[in-house]
Amino acid sequence: MVHEQTGGRSGDDGRLGVRLHDTLGEAAVQEQRELACEQLGFARTGSPREVRHPGARDGLGLDAVGALVAVAAAGVVVVRAAQAESKMYLTQRGSRIAMRVAVLGTGMVGRALAGRLADLGHDVVMGTRDVAETLARTSPDGMGNPPLPTWLAGRPQVKLDSLAAAAAHGEIVVNATSGGHSIDALVAAGAQNLAGKVLIDIANPLDFSHGMPPTLFVKDTYSLGEQIQADFPDARVVKTLNTLNANLMVNPRELADGDHSVFVSGNDPAAKAIVIGLLRDFGHTDVIDLGDITTARGSEMYLPIWLRLMGALGSSAFNVKVVR
Amino acid sequence: MVHEQTGGRSGDDGRLGVRLHDTLGEAAVQEQRELACEQLGFARTGSPREVRHPGARDGLGLDAVGALVAVAAAGVVVVRAAQAESKMYLTQRGSRIAMRVAVLGTGMVGRALAGRLADLGHDVVMGTRDVAETLARTSPDGMGNPPLPTWLAGRPQVKLDSLAAAAAHGEIVVNATSGGHSIDALVAAGAQNLAGKVLIDIANPLDFSHGMPPTLFVKDTYSLGEQIQADFPDARVVKTLNTLNANLMVNPRELADGDHSVFVSGNDPAAKAIVIGLLRDFGHTDVIDLGDITTARGSEMYLPIWLRLMGALGSSAFNVKVVR
Repeated sequence: MVHEQTGGRSGDDGRLGVRLHDTLGEAAVQEQRELACEQLGFARTGSPREVRHPGARDGLGLDAVGALVAVAAAGVVVVRAAQAESKMYLTQRGSRIAMRVAVLGTGMVGRALAGRLADLGHDVVMGTRDVAETLARTSPDGMGNPPLPTWLAGRPQVKLDSLAAAAAHGEIVVNATSGGHSIDALVAAGAQNLAGKVLIDIANPLDFSHGMPPTLFVKDTYSLGEQIQADFPDARVVKTLNTLNANLMVNPRELADGDHSVFVSGNDPAAKAIVIGLLRDFGHTDVIDLGDITTARGSEMYLPIWLRLMGALGSSAFNVKVVR
Repeated sequence: MVHEQTGGRSGDDGRLGVRLHDTLGEAAVQEQRELACEQLGFARTGSPREVRHPGARDGLGLDAVGALVAVAAAGVVVVRAAQAESKMYLTQRGSRIAMRVAVLGTGMVGRALAGRLADLGHDVVMGTRDVAETLARTSPDGMGNPPLPTWLAGRPQVKLDSLAAAAAHGEIVVNATSGGHSIDALVAAGAQNLAGKVLIDIANPLDFSHGMPPTLFVKDTYSLGEQIQADFPDARVVKTLNTLNANLMVNPRELADGDHSVFVSGNDPAAKAIVIGLLRDFGHTDVIDLGDITTARGSEMYLPIWLRLMGALGSSAFNVKVVR
């Protein structure tokens, strides 16, 4: 249960990670539950211990809103943020209610994420540095992908906006920019638009300036994931999906019916739980929580063997299964 | 067929990698085959195109001694080295004849390798820096392993000698020392005792001086495997097994009946083929050739995620399967 998890940022700021019964007692918890349900727009169902969010398919036991109670009790977030939290919490429980998602980056990875998230019913805005310039493109990019307007024409449900406007839209923000541009892109998105939000970081710190194969511009004692968390301390960074090609990130069942592994790293257990829920929606069957954001060093330093495997196998349509 | 492989060191020095029919013509090839068979101690069998090595279970088609013909034709190795080559070639073909193997290092990895190789019938000498000091040990080492004399007492077929004497003994040499000591240990073993031999490098460049988890003292643009190949240019370095715990290195069938992957990196295709044969004897079912020795950067930089996975799973008894 999320509301029993402690440690990391959650423990630091008290928004989540509160051991409710220990700190409040049952009566206070019940009172906070009622308050949270009211604030967050949950309605009673026929069952006395069940509520339902207007956007959710299924009802939710009152106990399950414990995390939301912590939100209300801590009093540090406004109701709209708490509403986002409640929707993400429901998502994590498999209720799949529509969320507002920002996907920063319009390359292969950004398109894969935006398209799949939109297919799953989420309200997706892609963010790009210069909207007019991006929309004026008529030729394929350096990787041979069709120009974004062509792609968007087939995806009318995906909108395009500036990095800042996209981030402001998102309840969840996905960093799908190239590693070398990620910090600049997130600065342009705006720290205030990332604060309190789950920031899914998919980028790898690849340095192509010395030729192929690329090297890593940060590694071993630090990582891009850590750098992003340090530069945006109010974002809840979760590193994931950086160990797969773009198609398998969002369609893992296309390889061995999903019998392979993906990793998450981050300081906020609740944020990781939300991301794990999304990964399962994509079709991932084996999500391994490596630990705090420093473990992103591991998944980022996996890239060199991934690149060599791509060379040896002649394809990027592979992934590792952690056999144990 | 090995004798049709080109590139890497083989192509450079002409010992192997010769396209025989292209360069010699059929009559000369036949003559060289006869010469090679005589020099290497192969005897004719009942079949006119089959020979048998006295140590081998099975006969070998005359064509299959093509690699040995190249050895004789190039004239750069003495007969004893050619004999070793022939035994390794037979091993690679699954004939499992006994070889002389040096295992440098007496820790967990060295013991796992030495024990398993001895069980497979090979003539194993472990190498240690100071034989008298090692044999005088009575207490467990820093990792809690019993002192080597205790281990050796249960393995009477494994001998212990100096690094140089062990390397001189070996037709194949295994570097099972810790990464930080590998170069010193190989210098002590002696370049002349490594020349022309397959050098299986299992070490990882782990730096424990800054606490846990360890960092890597070489990475990204270079690797320990490359450093060893550069410092001992006449050795035929093959990086492998550094991505598994000691037990699974040599007993892979104990996990998921061996349904997981192991990697090889090296410049010499024939040396890699020999090592792949040994890995299959251990029970490995999926050996992936990543490419030349620079690909050791990949398998060495995999260590950080391996270490984090060990933490997350609470065990080192895991491995990755490359699903494709």
